[in-house]
Amino acid sequence: MPREIDVSLGERSYRVVVSDLDRWQEIDLPELSERGRSAVLVTDDNVGPLWTEPARGFLERAGLNVSEIRIKAGEASKSLETLKSLYDRLIKEELKRDSWVVALGGGVVGDLSGFAAATYLRGVALLQIPTSLLAMADSSVGGKVGIDYGGGKNLVGAFHQPRLVLTSPGFLTTLPNTEFANGLAEVIKAAIIADPALFELIETKPTPIWNREAMVLEELIARSISVKARIVEEDELEVGRRQLLNLGHTLGHALEAASGFSTLRHGEAVAIGLTAACQLSVLLGLLPAGERDRIERVLERHNLPTRCSDLSWEDVEPWIRLDKKGREEGWTYVLTGGIGNVSVHRQVPEASVREAAAYVLV
Amino acid sequence: MPREIDVSLGERSYRVVVSDLDRWQEIDLPELSERGRSAVLVTDDNVGPLWTEPARGFLERAGLNVSEIRIKAGEASKSLETLKSLYDRLIKEELKRDSWVVALGGGVVGDLSGFAAATYLRGVALLQIPTSLLAMADSSVGGKVGIDYGGGKNLVGAFHQPRLVLTSPGFLTTLPNTEFANGLAEVIKAAIIADPALFELIETKPTPIWNREAMVLEELIARSISVKARIVEEDELEVGRRQLLNLGHTLGHALEAASGFSTLRHGEAVAIGLTAACQLSVLLGLLPAGERDRIERVLERHNLPTRCSDLSWEDVEPWIRLDKKGREEGWTYVLTGGIGNVSVHRQVPEASVREAAAYVLV
Repeated sequence: MPREIDVSLGERSYRVVVSDLDRWQEIDLPELSERGRSAVLVTDDNVGPLWTEPARGFLERAGLNVSEIRIKAGEASKSLETLKSLYDRLIKEELKRDSWVVALGGGVVGDLSGFAAATYLRGVALLQIPTSLLAMADSSVGGKVGIDYGGGKNLVGAFHQPRLVLTSPGFLTTLPNTEFANGLAEVIKAAIIADPALFELIETKPTPIWNREAMVLEELIARSISVKARIVEEDELEVGRRQLLNLGHTLGHALEAASGFSTLRHGEAVAIGLTAACQLSVLLGLLPAGERDRIERVLERHNLPTRCSDLSWEDVEPWIRLDKKGREEGWTYVLTGGIGNVSVHRQVPEASVREAAAYVLV
Repeated sequence: MPREIDVSLGERSYRVVVSDLDRWQEIDLPELSERGRSAVLVTDDNVGPLWTEPARGFLERAGLNVSEIRIKAGEASKSLETLKSLYDRLIKEELKRDSWVVALGGGVVGDLSGFAAATYLRGVALLQIPTSLLAMADSSVGGKVGIDYGGGKNLVGAFHQPRLVLTSPGFLTTLPNTEFANGLAEVIKAAIIADPALFELIETKPTPIWNREAMVLEELIARSISVKARIVEEDELEVGRRQLLNLGHTLGHALEAASGFSTLRHGEAVAIGLTAACQLSVLLGLLPAGERDRIERVLERHNLPTRCSDLSWEDVEPWIRLDKKGREEGWTYVLTGGIGNVSVHRQVPEASVREAAAYVLV
């Protein structure tokens, strides 16, 4: 049975469908026939050889004319240079305003081709087909697209909601373990924010999860997306509640930046950041230490780090200051009072942040 | 008395205020104090020497910290290269998500800095201060921003509504005559689309208009903006009614492109395009020939061309085909049945288009 999650954003509403790729053609997808027939499918040289053929076959049976662009896998492709090569190809294929850009891949492919779709002819339709757990659970839903620029991650970007998101748990069978853990960090974050049942599932079913059993993965993906969808519906442009999704990300981003976006993966940095956010919540009297320990155990059980020995406060502090989310109003943190209970706190004392960072930078 | 036009777009609503710059500080502008204090003012080397000082003085008295970027005047600045120089400066000034980009200038400055504002940190606030008649009457309102790319005008862009638009008829006293006529083409277009009283004003008061009398210019600007605002409110993203604003622009764009965006100004190309659209309307039995002649006389009275002797159908035809607004559904034209009466027509016969083009390509 396919699972469907609606993302209700008025005229920009769309569906996320989670179902085995072999069965996509059984699903009624009017979205695919309400626009033009031309589509450019963007993927990378890891995902393309594995999944272009079945994805393209499905799209062609649905009536689209598909041409493919393969970019180099990895964060370095989220660049102005690669963006230009996408624009050049969209021009060459004579894509029109009612054509499609299809993003088949992980977060890099989705963010980059999503930004091309957001800005080519002031915006064309975007079909997200996330193939990594990170992209499924987080980046393919919610409309954040962009590229890195001048050393700043996602410094140039837009909000451009997809017209449809299609994904399959089968994609995860070819995902390397490190990338799988990487995505689990965002799934665990979603569970802490708003879904205690999802947290219990992650806590109690590590083996079926790591065996990539389709049933449990569908549940995991659909629940993570639901958490994100409900928050995005309330605050599409991140002026308020959507900041909750940054739980663990202030220190997480600083760790990634301080390590030059190379040694630490995003999910690993987020796992350490989640631990620091829990400790900050303990220090400010919001969270019992036992709950922090419970969260740490789950992260570790799923092969995610909770400590970092390579970086010091002096390394990360400038990046926290430069954090693009730091408004002029002072330091803002997302803190937790327990699983399913998070809130945004302003004017958090710098001394406490430093103490919480010391807990993880060992 | 300042004139105010509301553009009602839900959360993206804003005001356009037309008033002498000397009197801006008497106007209540809560928009300027509801966000952060940092602002980068973008202007060009024509407008900057004339108007940066008073505009900056006003903004600083309103509490903003303003730094200035001057770009080279002209369409060539609507490039990825100049966009990069803007991003670099926004990074250097540490602009945050609640900071401002201020566009002080004509259409090029507004489109370019508007696109930087749309995409830097996924969008910061934009204050448009249009100084050319073209920008006042057309490009500063409605949220279309972008740059030229790969030979395509506005090929890369976004919809990003300003937070506020401020303008002064005084800016037009320093505008060269050719640029003034350039803007009048869009004012005449607005009048044909929806404002017979504005058309009569343009028809009967050429001398006060060309003497740049503040009273008549305020009326002209405010009425043009109102026409645009009402249409944008009904169709922000140009999926339907907003196409009306393309009256005269299909051939106009093709003429600009075929002449390499050099010999013909946008307004001149639009004036010829308006004439061709009138003739196409005559050929299809929608418009009496006398009304076409009346519109031609007004264009000519305001120093705008209605014919082009340098280009042939063979020159412009490929550009009409490539027109980014050409959907897969076939050729669409905006036609008129008289002043204040326009509509979108699909499946317009190519032979009639060719015959209408022959009327102006002499």
